[in-house]
Amino acid sequence: MREITIFSGSAHRELAAAICHHLEVPLAPSRVTRFANDCLEVQLLANCRERDVFIVQPLAPPVQDNLVELLLMLDAARGASAARITVVMPHFAYARSDKKGAPRISIAARLVADLMQTAGADRVLTMTLHSPQVHGFFGVPVDHLHALHELARHFRGGDLSNSVVVSPDLGNAKEASRFARLLGLPVAAAAKERISDDKVLISSIIGDVRGKDVVVLDDEIARGSTIVELLDRLVEHDVASIRVACTHGLFSDGALDRIGRRDDVAEIVCTNTVPLPGAEDAPKLTVISVAPALAEAMRRIHNGESVSVLFDEH
Amino acid sequence: MREITIFSGSAHRELAAAICHHLEVPLAPSRVTRFANDCLEVQLLANCRERDVFIVQPLAPPVQDNLVELLLMLDAARGASAARITVVMPHFAYARSDKKGAPRISIAARLVADLMQTAGADRVLTMTLHSPQVHGFFGVPVDHLHALHELARHFRGGDLSNSVVVSPDLGNAKEASRFARLLGLPVAAAAKERISDDKVLISSIIGDVRGKDVVVLDDEIARGSTIVELLDRLVEHDVASIRVACTHGLFSDGALDRIGRRDDVAEIVCTNTVPLPGAEDAPKLTVISVAPALAEAMRRIHNGESVSVLFDEH
Amino acid sequence: MREITIFSGSAHRELAAAICHHLEVPLAPSRVTRFANDCLEVQLLANCRERDVFIVQPLAPPVQDNLVELLLMLDAARGASAARITVVMPHFAYARSDKKGAPRISIAARLVADLMQTAGADRVLTMTLHSPQVHGFFGVPVDHLHALHELARHFRGGDLSNSVVVSPDLGNAKEASRFARLLGLPVAAAAKERISDDKVLISSIIGDVRGKDVVVLDDEIARGSTIVELLDRLVEHDVASIRVACTHGLFSDGALDRIGRRDDVAEIVCTNTVPLPGAEDAPKLTVISVAPALAEAMRRIHNGESVSVLFDEH
Amino acid sequence: MREITIFSGSAHRELAAAICHHLEVPLAPSRVTRFANDCLEVQLLANCRERDVFIVQPLAPPVQDNLVELLLMLDAARGASAARITVVMPHFAYARSDKKGAPRISIAARLVADLMQTAGADRVLTMTLHSPQVHGFFGVPVDHLHALHELARHFRGGDLSNSVVVSPDLGNAKEASRFARLLGLPVAAAAKERISDDKVLISSIIGDVRGKDVVVLDDEIARGSTIVELLDRLVEHDVASIRVACTHGLFSDGALDRIGRRDDVAEIVCTNTVPLPGAEDAPKLTVISVAPALAEAMRRIHNGESVSVLFDEH
Amino acid sequence: MREITIFSGSAHRELAAAICHHLEVPLAPSRVTRFANDCLEVQLLANCRERDVFIVQPLAPPVQDNLVELLLMLDAARGASAARITVVMPHFAYARSDKKGAPRISIAARLVADLMQTAGADRVLTMTLHSPQVHGFFGVPVDHLHALHELARHFRGGDLSNSVVVSPDLGNAKEASRFARLLGLPVAAAAKERISDDKVLISSIIGDVRGKDVVVLDDEIARGSTIVELLDRLVEHDVASIRVACTHGLFSDGALDRIGRRDDVAEIVCTNTVPLPGAEDAPKLTVISVAPALAEAMRRIHNGESVSVLFDEH
Amino acid sequence: MREITIFSGSAHRELAAAICHHLEVPLAPSRVTRFANDCLEVQLLANCRERDVFIVQPLAPPVQDNLVELLLMLDAARGASAARITVVMPHFAYARSDKKGAPRISIAARLVADLMQTAGADRVLTMTLHSPQVHGFFGVPVDHLHALHELARHFRGGDLSNSVVVSPDLGNAKEASRFARLLGLPVAAAAKERISDDKVLISSIIGDVRGKDVVVLDDEIARGSTIVELLDRLVEHDVASIRVACTHGLFSDGALDRIGRRDDVAEIVCTNTVPLPGAEDAPKLTVISVAPALAEAMRRIHNGESVSVLFDEH
Repeated sequence: MREITIFSGSAHRELAAAICHHLEVPLAPSRVTRFANDCLEVQLLANCRERDVFIVQPLAPPVQDNLVELLLMLDAARGASAARITVVMPHFAYARSDKKGAPRISIAARLVADLMQTAGADRVLTMTLHSPQVHGFFGVPVDHLHALHELARHFRGGDLSNSVVVSPDLGNAKEASRFARLLGLPVAAAAKERISDDKVLISSIIGDVRGKDVVVLDDEIARGSTIVELLDRLVEHDVASIRVACTHGLFSDGALDRIGRRDDVAEIVCTNTVPLPGAEDAPKLTVISVAPALAEAMRRIHNGESVSVLFDEH
Repeated sequence: MREITIFSGSAHRELAAAICHHLEVPLAPSRVTRFANDCLEVQLLANCRERDVFIVQPLAPPVQDNLVELLLMLDAARGASAARITVVMPHFAYARSDKKGAPRISIAARLVADLMQTAGADRVLTMTLHSPQVHGFFGVPVDHLHALHELARHFRGGDLSNSVVVSPDLGNAKEASRFARLLGLPVAAAAKERISDDKVLISSIIGDVRGKDVVVLDDEIARGSTIVELLDRLVEHDVASIRVACTHGLFSDGALDRIGRRDDVAEIVCTNTVPLPGAEDAPKLTVISVAPALAEAMRRIHNGESVSVLFDEH
Repeated sequence: MREITIFSGSAHRELAAAICHHLEVPLAPSRVTRFANDCLEVQLLANCRERDVFIVQPLAPPVQDNLVELLLMLDAARGASAARITVVMPHFAYARSDKKGAPRISIAARLVADLMQTAGADRVLTMTLHSPQVHGFFGVPVDHLHALHELARHFRGGDLSNSVVVSPDLGNAKEASRFARLLGLPVAAAAKERISDDKVLISSIIGDVRGKDVVVLDDEIARGSTIVELLDRLVEHDVASIRVACTHGLFSDGALDRIGRRDDVAEIVCTNTVPLPGAEDAPKLTVISVAPALAEAMRRIHNGESVSVLFDEH
Repeated sequence: MREITIFSGSAHRELAAAICHHLEVPLAPSRVTRFANDCLEVQLLANCRERDVFIVQPLAPPVQDNLVELLLMLDAARGASAARITVVMPHFAYARSDKKGAPRISIAARLVADLMQTAGADRVLTMTLHSPQVHGFFGVPVDHLHALHELARHFRGGDLSNSVVVSPDLGNAKEASRFARLLGLPVAAAAKERISDDKVLISSIIGDVRGKDVVVLDDEIARGSTIVELLDRLVEHDVASIRVACTHGLFSDGALDRIGRRDDVAEIVCTNTVPLPGAEDAPKLTVISVAPALAEAMRRIHNGESVSVLFDEH
Repeated sequence: MREITIFSGSAHRELAAAICHHLEVPLAPSRVTRFANDCLEVQLLANCRERDVFIVQPLAPPVQDNLVELLLMLDAARGASAARITVVMPHFAYARSDKKGAPRISIAARLVADLMQTAGADRVLTMTLHSPQVHGFFGVPVDHLHALHELARHFRGGDLSNSVVVSPDLGNAKEASRFARLLGLPVAAAAKERISDDKVLISSIIGDVRGKDVVVLDDEIARGSTIVELLDRLVEHDVASIRVACTHGLFSDGALDRIGRRDDVAEIVCTNTVPLPGAEDAPKLTVISVAPALAEAMRRIHNGESVSVLFDEH
Repeated sequence: MREITIFSGSAHRELAAAICHHLEVPLAPSRVTRFANDCLEVQLLANCRERDVFIVQPLAPPVQDNLVELLLMLDAARGASAARITVVMPHFAYARSDKKGAPRISIAARLVADLMQTAGADRVLTMTLHSPQVHGFFGVPVDHLHALHELARHFRGGDLSNSVVVSPDLGNAKEASRFARLLGLPVAAAAKERISDDKVLISSIIGDVRGKDVVVLDDEIARGSTIVELLDRLVEHDVASIRVACTHGLFSDGALDRIGRRDDVAEIVCTNTVPLPGAEDAPKLTVISVAPALAEAMRRIHNGESVSVLFDEH
């Protein structure tokens, strides 16, 4: 069997190291240079020839630098005669650009999928895409893991007798509904309205939340404006308690602090698909590692074993 | 300007004729032959050279025959040196296969999009895709019209003071929510659970429907099992009245009759994106023609005018 | 060596089972669903990851359903990370559409070859293509077996001292000539003229057939109109006896009965590249199984052994 | 309308000039350089930007030099922003390599078609392909003219009352049969057997030729060994007279002289799809110009008029 | 004729505006959004349908943001049915990554060329590529302008009687030699040696510079370390005076100041292919606008006139 | 591990044999046929199925025949199901056509790279490309060996105390400079000017050569006009002695004799990347075999070992 070789881009070396630790494989070295004219060069410092190469790179900020760096690594690995190149992209940030929400914009998730293929990606391993349809944007095989089980396992540890899962967006309600089913809970959803370019308004909450212990579930929290808006609405509906869960905890512009310091929020749960700089200073934050799940999927991809069994319960 | 030439496949010649009528362009003739070995041959009987060719073919049943026929027509038009070939596919039935719902299935909507491109499609004009992400499955430019405005115009004609829009599925709730906004109404949605391969169960209705005049909105009604299940649930919730609306009225296996003969259903509204064989015998059915909208879009595509203005209000 | 995994589409499960029997490999399960809107879904029910996958599907009627089903299976196997996907298509019905017989038609054999490649086919194993040039329509490697040897072996069992091979069409005479050489016989051919869309006329028979034991050879018999026309002409030429042989015995529209009940026809010989529904009720029919030849070719493809030796004698 | 610009490669400048004369368009200049290392460079010496470019180049000997020169011209025209590039290839010599006649050979006709597309060909205009299936090897639109009408017109000028058309090869008999039908004559064909690499044997002549005025029809005559062999056989069958016709008169290795000096050959007829160096010294040779037909087809391609009408009578 | 529509990315709006001014065409509006998760979205705010679209975007810093922004704009224009999309990239920064200088790196210039094509670029207009071979990295037509003439015109204004052109690198000496020829001057070149990753050493100067008025010519000056090193060497060789010229004046990390404040440097000359933030504070700096040259090339591209005449004198 | 199978085209069977000798692998047989119409056919006479196939073919004269022959072999190997096909092209003659030196020419090096990929090349092993950028013209992985070390080893054997390396062209001076560094010598270069199509003039020599032992280094010597011109100039500069070295010794039109018989030339050194017909009659010629280096690279490619270590010292 061809040997496995794992590289990490600059986006999240900590996660790549954790994956390698689980696989008992050393992280292969690489070197990134930023030239004086701001162009990047990545040199892979381990032989790729006929190897089964994995490149770990979530699209965490700075997204454009990390994306171009990834494309350069893919092309380098291909030119270095890798037998197969798998992109391990736990967070595919551009997946949110999955439809023509306005005239004359790019459906960037499809574009970025095509760019990765052009640069040499043979397959992709990713996690909790913004919508399941994004899977179809790829021309190469995709293994799409979900963090719902990992999150569900965490919540099952507490008392759920009076709980309800709330989706901050009707468009995402299906995912929340699946999560609710895993926990044996009812589901509710907010109906969102876009007021202006940078302002959404939650017009109503569909489903029963009054007096309930609410678990808010989203795929990604970045600046957190929608979540904060939802929290305000939930408080108005006299909910008993609130916990916030998401897969991709970007928490940009102080979102972690802004949500965490609210008295009405009891806990914030996310995974480590992207780096979490201020995590240690966030007492309410629980981070669940996806390294074991990713490592197991990579082991199976490498060995030609079924990956679908990993999310069969869904 | 290159001349426009419009062909119709076998799926829905009536619609193609209506479009041509609006555009004041004759429908170009073609001939379909089914050989003794069941293979199809389509001959286009009008010069295509340097023409702006449109081929009208919704994926109505028999879907496979209509799909292969379309692919043969595309290839014929390309081989005959058409300047540009636009597929006018008011109903893209395979759009429902837009995600990996089970291991080792094809995301057929992406596959069919690729097949059309392989066969020679330069662009696609379609209507009310099952999910907006399907737009991104195409490598060629897509103009995606919505029938919501046409449907909304119809409902605005009646009393909506006590109405609510209900989506039969949380996954589609966004579309219902947009429709509700067009009508100034609240929205509700059913939470569906798949019991077995051919059986879904509506576990709950999220949002307030009791005593309301309900407008059920779906993108496509085929066998109608989900709708019937929903109607039963709505009745249990003591709704005041029910009207059912959809864009693509396939009504297979007697669905039109099965829904229409229920006392609790006041009206069924759909468009003519697919042929409606039993329409004349369905007293509760209202059919709204999409021919004017498609014709206007085709005129704009041909003339290089903006199509996005057609759905700007959305 | 990567494991072999064999799936069958709906076209000819019996043949797939026979092949698996020869290879001592179980037929991998799959499930076909026809949705209410007439769209198909195929789920492959065995792990494909890094497997050497074969999909058995002749283009027997219903051709369009079987073709689309095959494309869905190819895409599913590719998405499921098959190492290599070989289409086993003993009868490639669209091979007859191999030239531009009229303006503005598709050369469908090329189109279908391209569609299979788009859907994920890495290679094709086929049998007795209508013309040898069809091989060149494929962008992927093709192993093209001929059933001539199997058929020749059968005829060598009888008395051939007064025999002649007759091709029903000059365009196919080369194949008949090769068959005649295998049997050490002279060859004759009918000159066909197309009178109208669905009517051909045999204007003359070129070569000597009077008083001879005739073996008519064609690649495919579907409705059999040409054959019947030829039989009439042969009778007029006072032939001594007639036997009819072909590789692909589609026998549509009662052709098997229509040919079989003629007193002047002594035997009909074909292979099982397509299913033969009425075979048991056709006393004059001899069916030669191609399963051993296909199985041997698949074994060699899988093991990287030469396949050309299988038809070296040609 | 974009302007037309016609270039000629080195293969047959005389024909290109004749075409330009008919179209009343000047032949655009180009310059071929052969470097000291034997590499070629072609510079197009007229602006191509947004022009409708045609490049005239039959694959006459030296075939490889002419092919590579053509590919260089295509790439140059593409790089120079031609709006559309049509290869005018009256003789596609590689069309004879249209099937896998032996294991591990290239189906070169398909390969060369692909190479032309890679180099930038948008469409192809060709004449009398060795087999009609070769049309399907091209991924770009092909206009395939036949010289049969031009040849038939010539023969209709003489007495055909006792004539028969003879094909030197069963594989080509279809074409001879079509030619015979145009002239209202019967058809016969030789059954060829390949004895060794460079030797074929005509084992028999199928059909009646004794005492007839024979018109031998082939698509291409190169060294003419098959023709000479056929002539010997025809003489043995006591034919009354022989005339030899073909589209592509390559006449290599003194074939023109070898055939022409036979007493039993009354006339040799061919077209000028390739240069005919010794034509003026061949008293029995009649050369029919295809320049008018090619020019008319190019005019129609440029103007977007139907080309199929040019060969409708076939 | 299809209308021209010009968009600008964020890299250099000033240049785009200057080009539009020369072409007397308004700059079409667009809107860039940076989402909370750091992903970009660009909306083109003018109709692109059947338009001849140009997108102006040099790869100035931040290079990765500007590159991804460009790719998004290309995809948006393609999806919006632009007839043709030309990238106007006066500075293609990644052109410096034009060879495999070390094992397992990407030849990024080729990769980026491929990415632009994937995203929808139909052609590219660029200026002074780092090496002329980079032209061949593009699969689409490229118009490659040189700024040498603009620079030469400037220097011809002064006294050149005692001057020599010096290339800071042997690898670029050809370009300096061409520049010298334009000015009727001799040429010299520095032999560079790379000491470590970020340090080069000029080992010698080949050619005569002592007592001369030196014009140093480079294609791009970024951090300027090589130039500064060269200046030191030139001073050691007792040159009479020094002027520094380049096309792409990036002047990162205070390079403009570092070079400008040297007494031995009399003048710095560059063009505005990239923005020059500190230009107004650099008394020795002369900036030559390339807007007229780019505008003229765009006018010719749009009108289908020859662009090569623009650099014929070279 | 898949077996290795090595074929040779007609260009340089001697080198292929030498490589096979080093690898202790038999040269697989093949047969080239030139048909009467000048078309080529190549049959590979060894099983390719799942083999690791190498095809040895430098682009030596006759270049066009050798190129087309190679493309036919690639397509044959692909059609015969080779697992991987590596082109071993020690001399890529078209690499000199690496830029748009004039309007409306092909950048033939890119075109030929694309043609090889179209025909089935999976990777390329080459030597001393005319410019390092040509590497980027290939869409497939390239292993680019340099003969500089082999040449340097030879020169290190003699006295270099008073030597200088001279490049006949500034454009190639970088390579000469690298060679000089390997030998610890200074470098000089000629500034060339093209007077007319077939005439270059050396206007000056940059760097110090007077009284020196000169080693002239070029990548390829064909007709040798530049070299002869340089020798004349060097003599005028009173050099002490001259030796001429190159990788690709084409020596066309008697160049070997023309250079060799000059008294001022002490030695001519080249490698055997191309056949050297008159080598035995050239007393001053030293030929260094590249077979060991190519064989070692092929061994590493086959075994998946790093090839970059082979030229690490560069």
